[in-house]
Amino acid sequence: MTSLDDLPIRDDLRGRAPYGAPQKSVPVALNVNENTHPIPEAVAHDIVARVAAAILQLNRYPDREFTDLRRAFAGYLGHSLDESNIWAANGSNEVLQHVLQAFGGPGRTALGFAPTYSMYGLLSAGTGTEWIGAPRDAEFELTPETAVAAVREHDPDIVILCAPNNPTGTPLSIETITAVADAARGIVVVDEAYHEFADPGTPSALTLLEDRPRLVVSRTMSKAFAFAGARVGYLAADPAVVDALRLVRLPYHLSALTQAAALGALAHSDQMLAMVDEIRGQRERIVAELDRLGFHAYRSGANFVLFGGVDDPHAVFEALLERGILIRDIGLPGCLRVTAGTETETTAFLEAIAAFAPASVV
Amino acid sequence: MTSLDDLPIRDDLRGRAPYGAPQKSVPVALNVNENTHPIPEAVAHDIVARVAAAILQLNRYPDREFTDLRRAFAGYLGHSLDESNIWAANGSNEVLQHVLQAFGGPGRTALGFAPTYSMYGLLSAGTGTEWIGAPRDAEFELTPETAVAAVREHDPDIVILCAPNNPTGTPLSIETITAVADAARGIVVVDEAYHEFADPGTPSALTLLEDRPRLVVSRTMSKAFAFAGARVGYLAADPAVVDALRLVRLPYHLSALTQAAALGALAHSDQMLAMVDEIRGQRERIVAELDRLGFHAYRSGANFVLFGGVDDPHAVFEALLERGILIRDIGLPGCLRVTAGTETETTAFLEAIAAFAPASVV
Repeated sequence: MTSLDDLPIRDDLRGRAPYGAPQKSVPVALNVNENTHPIPEAVAHDIVARVAAAILQLNRYPDREFTDLRRAFAGYLGHSLDESNIWAANGSNEVLQHVLQAFGGPGRTALGFAPTYSMYGLLSAGTGTEWIGAPRDAEFELTPETAVAAVREHDPDIVILCAPNNPTGTPLSIETITAVADAARGIVVVDEAYHEFADPGTPSALTLLEDRPRLVVSRTMSKAFAFAGARVGYLAADPAVVDALRLVRLPYHLSALTQAAALGALAHSDQMLAMVDEIRGQRERIVAELDRLGFHAYRSGANFVLFGGVDDPHAVFEALLERGILIRDIGLPGCLRVTAGTETETTAFLEAIAAFAPASVV
Repeated sequence: MTSLDDLPIRDDLRGRAPYGAPQKSVPVALNVNENTHPIPEAVAHDIVARVAAAILQLNRYPDREFTDLRRAFAGYLGHSLDESNIWAANGSNEVLQHVLQAFGGPGRTALGFAPTYSMYGLLSAGTGTEWIGAPRDAEFELTPETAVAAVREHDPDIVILCAPNNPTGTPLSIETITAVADAARGIVVVDEAYHEFADPGTPSALTLLEDRPRLVVSRTMSKAFAFAGARVGYLAADPAVVDALRLVRLPYHLSALTQAAALGALAHSDQMLAMVDEIRGQRERIVAELDRLGFHAYRSGANFVLFGGVDDPHAVFEALLERGILIRDIGLPGCLRVTAGTETETTAFLEAIAAFAPASVV
């Protein structure tokens, strides 16, 4: 039998394993920061109707420019954006890959602040871009001073700021984003995948786009829109950035089904986002309860919570899994991460984790 | 206003224009080798039902391994393949990109026989792979001797054989494919995007897969399956090759909508492919009629025909477009390419092109 080692794969791929959390079928899945609330039924019906119409013309290639969809994203984001400011792809991973293909590559560098979304490093490697993981301040926070010092030291071609940060949940202040955008020579990407879960009134990096042609704000429909299965990420930037991404995208990269489904969801964005307040409430409940139990819950602006004070994260992960509750061991010492689910799911998690509370040991 | 030149894009992208044929709304679109027959209505209903079921769980990430879909492709292809032999992505462009990411890259080369599918060169450039376009024999044919000589001369890491070849339509003999597979040191991809349109009895490169772990056979649902809008390409190869592609794919790259729609189409492959014989008949009609008119139609095993003997291809392209008929000027001197459409579409094309027949000039 032929093995991977027998094949002429690229040297830098040798010995590597594919990225991805375990996909297990469990009653309470709180491991990959999905929105655990299904799409509202009325919206689902409209999406089905739009997709059904698209299926009748599926023998034709989709609109390569996905102009209607770009217009709809611009309308959703506001801030005087129009379709010339918008790009989209099959998940924000592909959106970021397009940015790295256009502005990174061999001999170029991308910088982020570790620990952060692990796909940044993998996407950099996949495009031949050197990834630099600069350190954060205490509690995974990031001040303007720390961020700007790293940008000055490494002079990267691309900076990726995750706001709020995954996997720590840490909100990122608009002051830090502004300072980095003003200090950086290259492209600055603000990944706002979880922005809709931020505390009300939190300014988006979209407010900084005007007169900053190297600033890029990426988003996803996977989280707040409960659309992870549809694979739709997007970004807003200067139209020249969008032109650059057209040079590296595969033609017809967004299927007619994807375009129709996303248009349906955006036509009902109020209903699609109705669960965001509820999820934010469960997140705050998790933070308060974990702290009460003696864990250390980190500040979160997302739909998940990172918490420390876990003696043996792997053992706790396995114990919860035995009870049908799947959370995430992200490899940070003494830490685990949990998604804020429905009230019932959150209760199940909190009841199960209580058995491992540091306070109960004392 | 910021222009593309003001941005720090990769040097090799400077001055380039995005790939893609013009997307125009015309009565008779025969320019991008689509299947001009819509999906049969009964099949469309089943696909809608499957997609509707997927939409109810769209808040969850899709099956990252798309195991059901891989099993269905294996069943369709036959040749004792199973799901471990199958890979799929958003169009065969992405399938080929995965192959180039895993086995190509900086310092490596990919070789094909020009003129051939222009995306090969673009995908190579996008992955940092050097593209080598070796010459064909007369009439765009490719003998085992010519092909093997080029492989020996350039010793490429990847060979891509387009069978039948796009944009020329030229069938590729199994003898040439075998000779290349046996002579090449690296990966050999046989792109069978148009294989279903080959003359009955034409052997597929799938018959060569056994004991050839570096041979890859790629296919698409865009053409024979009338599924261009759904963006589904796939390949069959040794399971170790599939493992290599897992290292470079973006996680969850195939949406739940795509998986559901493709499964629906494959469940009815007989009905989906019912139009293939009809299209092959129109292709033969085009070849015969163009030859009768005094053009030179090249031999085709695809759903399109390349023809020479056109005095001014651009002028003829424009004249047909004025009559609502869109064909393709692929930049080969004296040549144009036309897709075999429905009988009515084919008639419209043949009536229009007759005005430019070389024979009528004499």
